[in-house]
Amino acid sequence: MTSIVMSQVGLDTVAELAAQLRVDSIRSSTSAGSGHPTSSMSAADLVAVLVARHLHYDWDQPASPANDHLIFSKGHASPLLYSLFKAVGVVSTDELVGGYRRFGQRLQGHPTPVLPWVDVATGSLGQGLPIGVGIALAARDLDHAPSRVWVLCGDSELAEGSIWEALDKAAYYRLSNLIAIVDVNRLGQRGETELGWNLDAYARRAEAFGANTLVIDGHDLPAIDDALATAAHTSGGQPTVILAKTIKGKGFAEVENSPDWHGKPFPADMAERAIAELGGVRHLVLRGPRPTPVPATNGPAAPARADATLPRYAVGDKVATRRAYGDALVALGAADARVVALDAEVSNSTYANGFAHAYTHRYFEMFIAEQQLVAAATGLAVRGYRPFASTFAAFWTRAHDFIRMGAISGVDLRLVGSHAGVEIGADGPSQMGLEDLAMLRAIHGSTVLYPSDATSTAALVQAMASRPGISYLRTTRGAYPVLYPPGEAFPIGGAKVLHSSDRDQVTLVGAGVTVHACLRAAELLEEEGIHARVVDCYSLKPIDGATLVAAVAATAGRMVIAEDHRPEGGLASAVTDSLLAAGRFNLSLAHLAVRDMPGSGSGAELLAWAGLDADHIVAAARRLIDTT
Amino acid sequence: MTSIVMSQVGLDTVAELAAQLRVDSIRSSTSAGSGHPTSSMSAADLVAVLVARHLHYDWDQPASPANDHLIFSKGHASPLLYSLFKAVGVVSTDELVGGYRRFGQRLQGHPTPVLPWVDVATGSLGQGLPIGVGIALAARDLDHAPSRVWVLCGDSELAEGSIWEALDKAAYYRLSNLIAIVDVNRLGQRGETELGWNLDAYARRAEAFGANTLVIDGHDLPAIDDALATAAHTSGGQPTVILAKTIKGKGFAEVENSPDWHGKPFPADMAERAIAELGGVRHLVLRGPRPTPVPATNGPAAPARADATLPRYAVGDKVATRRAYGDALVALGAADARVVALDAEVSNSTYANGFAHAYTHRYFEMFIAEQQLVAAATGLAVRGYRPFASTFAAFWTRAHDFIRMGAISGVDLRLVGSHAGVEIGADGPSQMGLEDLAMLRAIHGSTVLYPSDATSTAALVQAMASRPGISYLRTTRGAYPVLYPPGEAFPIGGAKVLHSSDRDQVTLVGAGVTVHACLRAAELLEEEGIHARVVDCYSLKPIDGATLVAAVAATAGRMVIAEDHRPEGGLASAVTDSLLAAGRFNLSLAHLAVRDMPGSGSGAELLAWAGLDADHIVAAARRLIDTT
Repeated sequence: MTSIVMSQVGLDTVAELAAQLRVDSIRSSTSAGSGHPTSSMSAADLVAVLVARHLHYDWDQPASPANDHLIFSKGHASPLLYSLFKAVGVVSTDELVGGYRRFGQRLQGHPTPVLPWVDVATGSLGQGLPIGVGIALAARDLDHAPSRVWVLCGDSELAEGSIWEALDKAAYYRLSNLIAIVDVNRLGQRGETELGWNLDAYARRAEAFGANTLVIDGHDLPAIDDALATAAHTSGGQPTVILAKTIKGKGFAEVENSPDWHGKPFPADMAERAIAELGGVRHLVLRGPRPTPVPATNGPAAPARADATLPRYAVGDKVATRRAYGDALVALGAADARVVALDAEVSNSTYANGFAHAYTHRYFEMFIAEQQLVAAATGLAVRGYRPFASTFAAFWTRAHDFIRMGAISGVDLRLVGSHAGVEIGADGPSQMGLEDLAMLRAIHGSTVLYPSDATSTAALVQAMASRPGISYLRTTRGAYPVLYPPGEAFPIGGAKVLHSSDRDQVTLVGAGVTVHACLRAAELLEEEGIHARVVDCYSLKPIDGATLVAAVAATAGRMVIAEDHRPEGGLASAVTDSLLAAGRFNLSLAHLAVRDMPGSGSGAELLAWAGLDADHIVAAARRLIDTT
Repeated sequence: MTSIVMSQVGLDTVAELAAQLRVDSIRSSTSAGSGHPTSSMSAADLVAVLVARHLHYDWDQPASPANDHLIFSKGHASPLLYSLFKAVGVVSTDELVGGYRRFGQRLQGHPTPVLPWVDVATGSLGQGLPIGVGIALAARDLDHAPSRVWVLCGDSELAEGSIWEALDKAAYYRLSNLIAIVDVNRLGQRGETELGWNLDAYARRAEAFGANTLVIDGHDLPAIDDALATAAHTSGGQPTVILAKTIKGKGFAEVENSPDWHGKPFPADMAERAIAELGGVRHLVLRGPRPTPVPATNGPAAPARADATLPRYAVGDKVATRRAYGDALVALGAADARVVALDAEVSNSTYANGFAHAYTHRYFEMFIAEQQLVAAATGLAVRGYRPFASTFAAFWTRAHDFIRMGAISGVDLRLVGSHAGVEIGADGPSQMGLEDLAMLRAIHGSTVLYPSDATSTAALVQAMASRPGISYLRTTRGAYPVLYPPGEAFPIGGAKVLHSSDRDQVTLVGAGVTVHACLRAAELLEEEGIHARVVDCYSLKPIDGATLVAAVAATAGRMVIAEDHRPEGGLASAVTDSLLAAGRFNLSLAHLAVRDMPGSGSGAELLAWAGLDADHIVAAARRLIDTT
């Protein structure tokens, strides 16, 4: 392998590289029988100049904090990205041509971090740039690294609002280390984009959102080179947006600027003609500039102290779990400098504000932009930080696609949703998280937690800090009694039996706010001579199947499950899935959940209305005992 | 009640009205002990001028298609909205002061269409304007009505990307009948907004996105009046954005422009001082201009023909269900002019393109903006149309919050997700809908359908057209054999037993693509002498509990469920929920689902990898029979 340093790569060589990237994009997609060659060809010149002369990247050390970042926000241009990986010598021709889009291979249809040079999964459009904001924040503000974040965007994805959330935040945080390169090839999947080649219209928008904006011909190598150099050395505290007018399918006259060739590989005969027109197959291997080393002390480091000193709460005191989240977050922040926090303009409700005041430089306000909230957290995680992001439970639905993609990226994110369920009361249904547990449970590799008291909340927040994947904590608005003494252990995947005897006739399962109703119900049942076992199912995923199986076996299959959530996909689903997975089962279930559309009212009124208070749990338990 | 026509209401009266709106906002929120008086007071002058002099609305006929629309995108300003309803005489003082935010009352914390003068629920910020785009499209392009759509926005919500998706579409569709009034009071929930009172920065953004933009002092009544008149009569084919500089808490010096009074009602003594400062309680009842009547023939009308002529497919032919969706949609479009369609730039994949070509004026392209896709559909539904909106199943997660709010709005939306599951193959996990069934099942009042063949797809698309609430149809990318003859009935809430005998030992439940694997598995089992019952569970919600109970009872409790979806919240969840709801149960379940992170490959390879092919179903059935 020949590695050539930046100064030696002239634009004549870059032109050869660009032709090679086009040829290889065609070869890989034609061989796979699927993929997006034309969307790759439009951006080949941009990427060739970038990689040969401006991207500071040590291809042998992809995890180095000194590296720039390259994100293909237009993930469908994966043939171009993988052809680039071949051109820098980290992927073989065999893998590129024989492995692309094949089963069991790492050169997937859209990039994922299965590849060490890919920071995050893309392919759901409009996500690469928002994530770039988080990476740029981490690099500049936390790592004090010179890393730049280069994001290749398509023009179609500029219709996603998330792109504008990203530019808004990039300008607000003066991220001059963030550069968006927009491949304006005019054509989307099914025809022309809204703005076509009206680059001035895009430029007005990007400028209005605070970006330093450059409009160029995306096939003019000196112009690209100038623009990238300008972007790399901008000092005005602005992100840069390079709007490059390009031609879809550039380099193969038969398909250039045609609306009929989106996402279609060329048949073999066409591929042959295209490769001939592009000057044939090439075997260039070259590398661009290396990064300036960063002192090892700059990056995220594991803490010296083993553990955080968690807040302590006295049993019986009324403390909202959202407040315990805030307290615990401050404690974690003290113990581990990798812990960072973000919120979407509701930190005084979620109680992320304590952390924001204590660790200002590790707190990132995302204002009311939940997609950007997850994206920024993802970017911070990419550079080794441990983000906790919070908003109202209901508003995580706004970021569902970003959470889903976060799981594909394999990042560790900690999400906290306050104001869950009808318990919130007067604000009404728009503010009530009633679908969040179902949403988060269905995310691959997720952890879903819903503590009932302050002690368990603090313990679970601590456990989340080192938890892989997407973890979610649901907190409650109101203050309820502390149930557990300081220091009690709450392993993820566990449950607590809060009330039991050797004569239990029915199991009452709650999580979060309903645990308190289950406890009260057990007292009321006791007065009637009915013995109930109460399970605090604070961990919905993973779930403590053993405790649940034991409980239901001890109570003749009778179980009442009460959840402040829609009936589908939440606590009861988690519980019954675990019981059914345990084998043949004999179960008599009463499932109390929010089955109608709530309005306003007090939390207590609405919990009663939904059938989630102690009286309803008692009635359900009694019915089970009477009938089974 | 005295109704005063527009020309008689001078700005001196408007000033009185504005003071009354402030006083009543204070009275209602103080009485409720919660709510947002200061966010109401900043916008009171804007709303007073609008309602008294520019909003054409017949308060006695809120459903009239001639009316303008008034949407509080900043739904937390509900005290102002309800005070306005009192001022026009449709809500009593008793209800306003005694009913606000109370249990069982209709003046909820955030507005919902429980009130006849509210088009859609708001309270999740950034949604009112996008929905306004859909209403404006319906009014202008379908109803040919003079109705204008006035949307009161907060400045904080301009951080949501969905606002920019909306302005982008409003400009693209030249919606001069859409007017956003932005109450720039500088203060969000926890402090200053990103742009504070930098109205010029907002103006540059709105102009760049194609809006006619006016910057005014939001407390200068003549300036407001001029701006609203200009907006109402703009002829340039642009939406208007009025940026009004306002003061939070305006009218009560103690709280004006204070960051500490967001979302807090005034204590009684403060309320008293505030009302005194505002000149005391008033009892104005007045109305603004009436709308110009619209011919009854302009609006959406029920079809003359009773039924659509559905496409017919021959049993055994291979037809993709996404194609059957497209065919059926064209058939519905022919039969019912209320049927409209939208897509987010993938109509050639979802097959909405057939409708787009056949009924151009009833098709609305939303480009790659899934939030706007649902919002526009919601707006079209508000004016009586029957929207079908389509994109890839995976990308519906992008619009989750809009779908959730659609349920609170009580609108009937028909969503179609193509490219579901690992079956899509080479494109990889970013494009695979694997969480969509869980998401849609947890939406209140939803219908979730997942047909296995073209005949059932067409029948279910027809059923969706008259289905209330949010209905969702999941389609499959690949072509599979038609299983049912033309004309077979597929009631929502039903299931089909495709294979059975009186000696069945195990039930195989599939939906969509897995039905074909279940059928093949039954054949293979038959060769081993094992008799299997196969259920096509095409309706997940509601679900055919009776058929499932009968099947599981007939097969000794043994059931294999196979779904091309994450294990949580999808088909198996729906099936087991229905079984457990039916009473005490003895169930031996094998649940096959997508439990790992897929990569690329062919659909068949990935279905086998996920354990969803016939061989895996056979093995699971055999294990159940061997062990139970």
